[in-house]
Amino acid sequence: MKGPLAGDVFGEMLRDALAVAAGVGRRPLAGGRLPRPVIEIVERDDGLVNGVLAAPYLAGPDEWPAHDRRALDLVRGRVLDIGVGGGRAALALQERGVAVTGLDVSPGAIEVCRARGVRDLVHATVEEHAAAGRRYDTFLLLGNNLGLLEGRERAPRFLAALAAMANPGARVVAQGTDPYGTTDPVQVTYHERNRGLGRLGGQLRLRLRYRELATDWFDYLVCSLAELAELVDGTGWRLAEVDDADAPYYLACLHLDGAADGAQVLA
Amino acid sequence: MKGPLAGDVFGEMLRDALAVAAGVGRRPLAGGRLPRPVIEIVERDDGLVNGVLAAPYLAGPDEWPAHDRRALDLVRGRVLDIGVGGGRAALALQERGVAVTGLDVSPGAIEVCRARGVRDLVHATVEEHAAAGRRYDTFLLLGNNLGLLEGRERAPRFLAALAAMANPGARVVAQGTDPYGTTDPVQVTYHERNRGLGRLGGQLRLRLRYRELATDWFDYLVCSLAELAELVDGTGWRLAEVDDADAPYYLACLHLDGAADGAQVLA
Repeated sequence: MKGPLAGDVFGEMLRDALAVAAGVGRRPLAGGRLPRPVIEIVERDDGLVNGVLAAPYLAGPDEWPAHDRRALDLVRGRVLDIGVGGGRAALALQERGVAVTGLDVSPGAIEVCRARGVRDLVHATVEEHAAAGRRYDTFLLLGNNLGLLEGRERAPRFLAALAAMANPGARVVAQGTDPYGTTDPVQVTYHERNRGLGRLGGQLRLRLRYRELATDWFDYLVCSLAELAELVDGTGWRLAEVDDADAPYYLACLHLDGAADGAQVLA
Repeated sequence: MKGPLAGDVFGEMLRDALAVAAGVGRRPLAGGRLPRPVIEIVERDDGLVNGVLAAPYLAGPDEWPAHDRRALDLVRGRVLDIGVGGGRAALALQERGVAVTGLDVSPGAIEVCRARGVRDLVHATVEEHAAAGRRYDTFLLLGNNLGLLEGRERAPRFLAALAAMANPGARVVAQGTDPYGTTDPVQVTYHERNRGLGRLGGQLRLRLRYRELATDWFDYLVCSLAELAELVDGTGWRLAEVDDADAPYYLACLHLDGAADGAQVLA
């Protein structure tokens, strides 16, 4: 019995998804002949496993959930797309003439974005990129990437890195999911166990797998708006606007304290 | 860190796939609201993992690969559909007026087949069912279920159980896949490691996972036609016909030795 290898799971999965979508390049084949759908495997530390189709990472706005389309209308000025992934949001913004930079820690994601035409890309963490001295008006976290806040420990550091890159009046536009509407005992038990460990209920401990590769275990947060407001408290950011028309999914708009006027001027 | 629970992985996956297809019943939901595609996770003992969409287990003949449709034309007389799964082949045979019995070790698969209208179902292994004294003219193994032969140790016992249930002139109609056409180093290395352990190259050691459940590890065989002929040798069965028009997929037809005339009479 061998375990999976450490590697750029997300990047390899996106590369294959792009090859399948384009019909060219190395593709995962069933029986060596038929292209098979590319599926990302998400393992949780309670033994839960989920398969997620990769194709939506490359989809155009017509195929997005409506709240993702509405998120594009909330951006202002220069945009940093954090966790740019397959580049779906960055490409849509470029088409609107918005100045957008795509940031990702996955080299494969950066490569796929470049192949798809995203012009400005940075391979770095938010802290590393903050040290580069560039400034933005909007920090975009789509596709549940509010989850990058991880939990009580990471959230203030993450938001501080964004504040360090913020122009006056800057905003965060982040998509999240309230996990607490479920009655599924697997989920309810997991939330309770987390709270017993001093973690947020929806502070998921995950690893991604794709073919022979796996990531390390990492935290990824799904939280309620009340929990988000608490996490943001004292960071200099303020939960200024919420769009929860597609609950349990929501868009949260954070503004830098005292900078709401600036944001309106930019609008 | 907790591991997955032991359970009827395949049955739970089929139940959810049926609920999603029918739009009724308990369904796996993304964020508690949107039905998500049901995906079976297949782990191999070298750390490789694959996600497989569940919907094809319920598909009608129009959506099948062509060799699966051709397999239906090869059945004669009373049919035992071994590993009946979601019942796709059993339902298609019933519609043709064929007397078919569906056999599966998964209670959930039996329940899904019953809900979908398969009339004659048995929850048992082939050995258990052989003890029940029923007789068949065709043993059908679709959907790569030639893999149930497992390897050199299990194949003769499995084929003996079928022979014990065989009417004169009986046949096995089995779909397999030749795994050796690939140059993928992950696969080539796996085949070599297997041979080094005295196993057949494509003798996969797998477990299935779905949500919080996992099966035990089990062997599942993908083999060449030459390997199949060797496995069959001395069992009383003979590799009589092959359809490899869709290579690397193939249909193998086994006849009981000296019973080829009987098979032709039944035709």
